[in-house]
Amino acid sequence: MNFETEEFKNRLQAERDRAEEVLRKYAVCAEEGYQRPLLSAMNYSLTAGGKRLRPIFMHLVFELFADEKDNTVLLEHFMAAMEMIHTYSLVHDDLPAMDNDLYRRGRKTTHAVYGEAIGILAGDALLNRAYETACGAFLSCTSENDMKRVARALSILSEKAGVYGMVGGQTADVYAEKTDMPMDKEQLDFTIRLKTGALIEASFMIGAVLAGAGEEEVDRMERAASFVGKAFQIQDDILDMIGDEEKLGKPVGSDARNQKSTYVTLYGLEEAGQDVARYSGEALSLLEDFADSEFLRALIGSLINRNS
Amino acid sequence: MNFETEEFKNRLQAERDRAEEVLRKYAVCAEEGYQRPLLSAMNYSLTAGGKRLRPIFMHLVFELFADEKDNTVLLEHFMAAMEMIHTYSLVHDDLPAMDNDLYRRGRKTTHAVYGEAIGILAGDALLNRAYETACGAFLSCTSENDMKRVARALSILSEKAGVYGMVGGQTADVYAEKTDMPMDKEQLDFTIRLKTGALIEASFMIGAVLAGAGEEEVDRMERAASFVGKAFQIQDDILDMIGDEEKLGKPVGSDARNQKSTYVTLYGLEEAGQDVARYSGEALSLLEDFADSEFLRALIGSLINRNS
Repeated sequence: MNFETEEFKNRLQAERDRAEEVLRKYAVCAEEGYQRPLLSAMNYSLTAGGKRLRPIFMHLVFELFADEKDNTVLLEHFMAAMEMIHTYSLVHDDLPAMDNDLYRRGRKTTHAVYGEAIGILAGDALLNRAYETACGAFLSCTSENDMKRVARALSILSEKAGVYGMVGGQTADVYAEKTDMPMDKEQLDFTIRLKTGALIEASFMIGAVLAGAGEEEVDRMERAASFVGKAFQIQDDILDMIGDEEKLGKPVGSDARNQKSTYVTLYGLEEAGQDVARYSGEALSLLEDFADSEFLRALIGSLINRNS
Repeated sequence: MNFETEEFKNRLQAERDRAEEVLRKYAVCAEEGYQRPLLSAMNYSLTAGGKRLRPIFMHLVFELFADEKDNTVLLEHFMAAMEMIHTYSLVHDDLPAMDNDLYRRGRKTTHAVYGEAIGILAGDALLNRAYETACGAFLSCTSENDMKRVARALSILSEKAGVYGMVGGQTADVYAEKTDMPMDKEQLDFTIRLKTGALIEASFMIGAVLAGAGEEEVDRMERAASFVGKAFQIQDDILDMIGDEEKLGKPVGSDARNQKSTYVTLYGLEEAGQDVARYSGEALSLLEDFADSEFLRALIGSLINRNS
């Protein structure tokens, strides 16, 4: 499937609509009670748009392994939880003490609207609510097998979001910036693998686990996702250097101005471009044996050829 | 058992030692890799002392219901997870955008040592690691029954720590302070119930659940804990007004100086003292039917008669 076809675009829209619907159903809360400012800030950040890539990946990988017996309700809990964890990480990344960003995707950031204290608490509450939502899947389990899958999915989620996953990567990134010590290649590789890669890996793995895939297949999904994460982040760095500001919705060249080490500053534009192609090729070849992976592979192709 | 006896003091020390040992075993991480500043900040905050009340309550309630078959390894995962959630809430409460405290229990706060960005990330990482640690209990399950107990305990933990639990209470507290709108009695009651009460309730409930208590008994523990939380917080407010600075390790009168609504400012010292006695009496009477609750009841008695 070519990602420039109408078929691809329609399917992508349908996947995005599904992810938005799941978020509305599981993640958005009624804004009432004394915690109203918090609930309002959480909803604001959750409904700020975005590609919804992680829950879409989770759903697509689930479909690679699922048969009609497999419980999509369990999956929906984790799709929502994953997007909440991604969202909390953005809310905290944007804080004054971190990247100090007032705008994201053309909208004011959460702390810019609700203040710094509620920004911190909204991130905390989103992270916690992700686990509350994922735990909700236990109530929909109809067998011991279901319970084991949910338990395994929860373990993956918590590991990949944690200190040896995403938060670990954020730390390396922030620490380099706050100490004015630009990263070397090894540190940058670590940061990309954890900060960007870990949640994408978790999305692929959880999709597979909830559809009953075996450990070997789950490992294969983890490897494929790791290549997708790398290719995706390098493409991000390339776009920051040579992208179209209007299409990106943000100024380009910010990494260079901040003297930040990126894949492009460390490897050069040419090698970066080659590596995007190489890593995405690795991901695609790990997926090509699956009969139903056509759209997933096209989606990966679209991401590494994107201009926004 | 009288809480002024040697027997009580020895038992309390033994419970505290056990909680510290569990924390060292499950929560403290080797400080290595590019996320070292984060791991170091997490360990710093986790080893800052404190009463370790929540894991101690969890263990004592577990013992009320457990027989020799019940798996204490499952419990240990949750004791550690609970203390990590309590610790993250303190780390974030102390941040400049929140209470802006540079000292806690006579030691510099986490952000004061590691900077604000690492302070935010360390709190995030502690919250996430709490769930990672609690999920680790699934690996020690030896039956479907064990799995069901761990799943239920996880659900309680995530609910009581979340937007309708502790974080909700923090929000009401912070919001009143940031907007300079002192709380009325209803708001204060909400804040005490969620900010202080929710994690104590979860500790009692999880102890009961992991020992196989039935839903009615779990409800009874939740009610008892709710009274303990109220009595504990009101006593805190009393000590802030009339306590001994040296014994408390912090200046008294800070609530009054900050024109903060507390139980004492809203109800007066006399009624506050009566309510501590009344609420702790309610808690004790819910526990008195349990043959093995003697030490737990003495501990509750010591908390409401404490001077630090």
